[in-house]
Amino acid sequence: MTSQKPMEYTNKYTTFSREEILEEVSASMSKKRFKHVLGVEKKAIELAELYGEDTEKVSLAALLHDYAKEQAEAEMLDLIISENMDLDLTQYGSAIWHGPVGAILARREFGIEDEEILNAITNHTIGAPTMSLVEQILFVADYIEPGRDFEGVSKARELAEESIREAVRYEMEQTIQHLLSNKMKIYPKAIDSYNAWVAN
Amino acid sequence: MTSQKPMEYTNKYTTFSREEILEEVSASMSKKRFKHVLGVEKKAIELAELYGEDTEKVSLAALLHDYAKEQAEAEMLDLIISENMDLDLTQYGSAIWHGPVGAILARREFGIEDEEILNAITNHTIGAPTMSLVEQILFVADYIEPGRDFEGVSKARELAEESIREAVRYEMEQTIQHLLSNKMKIYPKAIDSYNAWVAN
Repeated sequence: MTSQKPMEYTNKYTTFSREEILEEVSASMSKKRFKHVLGVEKKAIELAELYGEDTEKVSLAALLHDYAKEQAEAEMLDLIISENMDLDLTQYGSAIWHGPVGAILARREFGIEDEEILNAITNHTIGAPTMSLVEQILFVADYIEPGRDFEGVSKARELAEESIREAVRYEMEQTIQHLLSNKMKIYPKAIDSYNAWVAN
Repeated sequence: MTSQKPMEYTNKYTTFSREEILEEVSASMSKKRFKHVLGVEKKAIELAELYGEDTEKVSLAALLHDYAKEQAEAEMLDLIISENMDLDLTQYGSAIWHGPVGAILARREFGIEDEEILNAITNHTIGAPTMSLVEQILFVADYIEPGRDFEGVSKARELAEESIREAVRYEMEQTIQHLLSNKMKIYPKAIDSYNAWVAN
């Protein structure tokens, strides 16, 4: 659990309470991932307070960002097809598609219609050429939440305190560098994000 | 000039003689670039002999690969539009579009119809997920011709002697690494090539 006092939702974005959402989210994933989700929420709320963003929006985006990550692969593939999503997603595995699919589930199962929340969930892994502050906060919070431990995380944390945009840039650059260094597949839309945010 | 004895063309791929092509190519670019073109031809012929490819094909592809590089930008943009080429090309500048545009000019001005030659010219900068041996040879020869001098070129030259495919892989990986290290724009199709050739 986070050390913050649990926030109360206003019903502005969903009729579900935060507790009800926590219950569903917790039931859908491993304990380890649930701990990560709570860490992302904690960090996202901190960043929202720092940069003057709606804490309820970022809390919802954070709690639901990995909701599709441990769902059955076959069902997710069905959803990609039935929702006319980019079929390219199927080539890159759940590491890529759980964002866009998670946004569909957030709408379907929790009635969330707010575009900033849905886009934040959609783009939390690969970013997008243009990102709202809510999107930027989730993107960065997911990278630097307290449970993360990798080379460069402290630099990312420092940047996030100074400028959320610089933190977004750093994360995009480091992510592509990591994939390249490990000869891993790069989703072409991640390059669109890099080109818009990082490249001169 | 190359130290090889000049090859004679057979008329199989174009009615122009090698000398006539050299004249047109030389008139279209700086002396420095023309020297590079001759270096690429020399290296491409060596690789064709090593790997059992048609030396006339690779000579033509090499001589014409940069033919569009110093043409007037406005005319090249007109051509991209009139030929219904990928409009994305216009966003990435002549460094990217001179390949596809060069192939159009090779067909129009020199009557070349051979798909391997044309594809080699089209893809010599960014590669493609699937490449014929002619394409691979031009792609690598352009990177390692005798006039090239950069970190990694001797490794690329060694690989080219051992395995043309390994040389293609190395070049794709190094090229994206170079762009990323310098925060330069990455053309998304270069990632399609990397994903197909390099990524596991």
